[in-house]
Amino acid sequence: MSKLTHLDGEGRARMVDVSHKPETKRRAVASGRLTCAAATLDAVLEGRAPKGAVISTAELAGVMGAKRTSDLIPLCHPLPLAKVAVTITPDAGLPGFQVSAEAITTGPTGVEMEALTAVSTACLTLFDMLKAIDRGMTIEAIQVDEKTGGASGDWTRRDPAAS
Amino acid sequence: MSKLTHLDGEGRARMVDVSHKPETKRRAVASGRLTCAAATLDAVLEGRAPKGAVISTAELAGVMGAKRTSDLIPLCHPLPLAKVAVTITPDAGLPGFQVSAEAITTGPTGVEMEALTAVSTACLTLFDMLKAIDRGMTIEAIQVDEKTGGASGDWTRRDPAAS
Amino acid sequence: MSKLTHLDGEGRARMVDVSHKPETKRRAVASGRLTCAAATLDAVLEGRAPKGAVISTAELAGVMGAKRTSDLIPLCHPLPLAKVAVTITPDAGLPGFQVSAEAITTGPTGVEMEALTAVSTACLTLFDMLKAIDRGMTIEAIQVDEKTGGASGDWTRRDPAAS
Amino acid sequence: MSKLTHLDGEGRARMVDVSHKPETKRRAVASGRLTCAAATLDAVLEGRAPKGAVISTAELAGVMGAKRTSDLIPLCHPLPLAKVAVTITPDAGLPGFQVSAEAITTGPTGVEMEALTAVSTACLTLFDMLKAIDRGMTIEAIQVDEKTGGASGDWTRRDPAAS
Amino acid sequence: MSKLTHLDGEGRARMVDVSHKPETKRRAVASGRLTCAAATLDAVLEGRAPKGAVISTAELAGVMGAKRTSDLIPLCHPLPLAKVAVTITPDAGLPGFQVSAEAITTGPTGVEMEALTAVSTACLTLFDMLKAIDRGMTIEAIQVDEKTGGASGDWTRRDPAAS
Amino acid sequence: MSKLTHLDGEGRARMVDVSHKPETKRRAVASGRLTCAAATLDAVLEGRAPKGAVISTAELAGVMGAKRTSDLIPLCHPLPLAKVAVTITPDAGLPGFQVSAEAITTGPTGVEMEALTAVSTACLTLFDMLKAIDRGMTIEAIQVDEKTGGASGDWTRRDPAAS
Repeated sequence: MSKLTHLDGEGRARMVDVSHKPETKRRAVASGRLTCAAATLDAVLEGRAPKGAVISTAELAGVMGAKRTSDLIPLCHPLPLAKVAVTITPDAGLPGFQVSAEAITTGPTGVEMEALTAVSTACLTLFDMLKAIDRGMTIEAIQVDEKTGGASGDWTRRDPAAS
Repeated sequence: MSKLTHLDGEGRARMVDVSHKPETKRRAVASGRLTCAAATLDAVLEGRAPKGAVISTAELAGVMGAKRTSDLIPLCHPLPLAKVAVTITPDAGLPGFQVSAEAITTGPTGVEMEALTAVSTACLTLFDMLKAIDRGMTIEAIQVDEKTGGASGDWTRRDPAAS
Repeated sequence: MSKLTHLDGEGRARMVDVSHKPETKRRAVASGRLTCAAATLDAVLEGRAPKGAVISTAELAGVMGAKRTSDLIPLCHPLPLAKVAVTITPDAGLPGFQVSAEAITTGPTGVEMEALTAVSTACLTLFDMLKAIDRGMTIEAIQVDEKTGGASGDWTRRDPAAS
Repeated sequence: MSKLTHLDGEGRARMVDVSHKPETKRRAVASGRLTCAAATLDAVLEGRAPKGAVISTAELAGVMGAKRTSDLIPLCHPLPLAKVAVTITPDAGLPGFQVSAEAITTGPTGVEMEALTAVSTACLTLFDMLKAIDRGMTIEAIQVDEKTGGASGDWTRRDPAAS
Repeated sequence: MSKLTHLDGEGRARMVDVSHKPETKRRAVASGRLTCAAATLDAVLEGRAPKGAVISTAELAGVMGAKRTSDLIPLCHPLPLAKVAVTITPDAGLPGFQVSAEAITTGPTGVEMEALTAVSTACLTLFDMLKAIDRGMTIEAIQVDEKTGGASGDWTRRDPAAS
Repeated sequence: MSKLTHLDGEGRARMVDVSHKPETKRRAVASGRLTCAAATLDAVLEGRAPKGAVISTAELAGVMGAKRTSDLIPLCHPLPLAKVAVTITPDAGLPGFQVSAEAITTGPTGVEMEALTAVSTACLTLFDMLKAIDRGMTIEAIQVDEKTGGASGDWTRRDPAAS
């Protein structure tokens, strides 16, 4: 069980000591998607309202959500985020929305959780804005696509955001 | 575009007026899952540590996350939650973890977003606690399974939490 | 000093007891403005980017800020907001941006502070997004324009948002 | 539009990457004022209660508000604040209150927004504590007076806090 | 174990369902104290600074802390607080400070935790402001003194705040 | 009064400037206890439920509470916590629970307040989970046991956690 770093020798949850780790630049990219009915996507793309309103609200919520990561995830370290960007792309093939987030920090731990929280919050916000017309939507495939920096080295998912 | 209640006539994002809606009991159930490598599930189930530590931490994070819903989702109304419960079940068939959340309020709007945020936060917490041994995990199928109460009536997903 | 309701008989700051007050519908409208250089307004209105990005970000920040009012203002009661809407209008005459916010609750106290906090947060967000090209901007004339509901009755500012 | 650093090439709101910027000492001073009726100022200055209660509550709220800046302003980076001080001075000439705030950090970005948020929160708190006796108050002239540190160099407003 | 209401039949932590409970007026009083060296108390009482600054800061922190109770205590219900007041009294006999808090709500659950969190936050703030001159201080005797309202009836501690 | 670093020369509360202090590794250990009826402790230790549920919930709340320290304590600097661990031990001799917390940072100020806030939040959470069966519990002896790092040097309480 020593591999589960968030538990001590007795299985007690703890925030791992990172005080001995150097502060280096770290970057993570995560993705996910919201699938909905074709008519729901159309309502966003073809409505009278600026099509950006739903998408830009969810992108902004994702950026702000990333800043709340250590408030939400009990054992996450607070990190001074250097960059967060969220991109939402309508995808008629799903139908639905592809969501991607990039997070960068200069710190002792990685930013995968910040990128994942950004994606997750953006998907929830899309859901909130569209649920009045489509209760059956689903949030899918939230995952880390790549990470760079840190002692464990760089890593890229072999099948990033496969849909 | 009038169907998108979170946008006004000009496509401006807003928090919808619910002051004319009666306060009634409302309940929502949402679900989702984290899929991981079989070895990751084994580390949780067969480790020396109390197997509950990973799961109970994520369940608690889900409950607390539900209480932050209106902080995270820009146009969500703050609601006096009357109950939140999160249940995480290991599932060797995935392999991974099934996550379910129930939220109840007495208020003018529904609690689907609170239930979804609980599931989402619980999944992110599982991810955080297991990512040191498995970077390739995926959060899947976050959706509303049922809702009761409110003017729009009761609703049950036809294929709840199909895995 | 008894008129200062937030102080007790000994001048001690306190959150006033509102448990005896009935829950009624209350509404408040507040306004303010950001004045900037004409070139700054032009950058927002005539840029290649969708002109809505700066404005919609600030409007959304205003809505979310209203929900944090009781976290920020020490003696404010937490309120279940029923509606928040923020409207930002470019105004070449200033030059700058007119900001207006409406807040509604059903509760025992008024929502002036929520409307004011929405305006204030929206103005700060405009400032943040434009400060790279204009450090000399000023936030002006944040005030309550009208309030309805509550024991003290309705009230309208005689010179609302005079600019 | 490239001058609007908070928007990417497509006008999408983002938190700008500051990971390449050195951590240096940065300081900002901001100011603003609350104007009120003469009788309102008198109630604070001549009341039976310690006159400091209204002012010290608002000063403290300003300090705490500065720490919430990155929660409130969507694209603000979280910063490790090294100092925040807020000073409120009654001013019979307005009549009202002059508010000033100083913020210092050692980090990759400036602290203008933290100083402005401190001033803004202090003004809102004054308003909250006095609104029972004076609904017509106005928050005026919130602006940056000076900043030091950072690649863009030092800057002083030519007409600081002109009233 | 059924007596431990925060655990379900399987020992899982949950937020108890209170949707069937009537909203009634509830009040709780809690107390505690900070004991310090006599010289520390003297520094507060006899210093050049207004003696109220340390005490009023801690009282205000207590009021604001009460509003964060459901954020801090995992299974606490969010409550619309109707009143919070914190009183700190220097006590040469300890030597130290007596801290008392009163909380009132109209809701389905009690406010003991809000009153206790107010006392606790006020004590921590006193500690923070005085620790530069006295590291050996101790927070003592945080307890509920009385509660009224709710199905379980009124209750008064037999030895309230005995010091 | 110069010894009270949180007050300036005029007794005004402020967040002290730490921008000139070097970032060094700092560690603090704090402790406290919850005393309860013997039957209450038995309900936790001998119940059908996993005995860890009450204790692990409170430990996790303590870790999360430490991360909110600068939100709660008005003049505390926000710190990038490198480690937080909370340990709760049932103690039949009290009867009750011994609570201990360790906090580590690399920063310009100490982490005593973070360790104390962790202990305090854990004690409040124990109280919340047990109050349905025991209203008379008391939180006792919250104190700093040791600190290392920083200009003021290492320090150990002569009678740590004496019960």
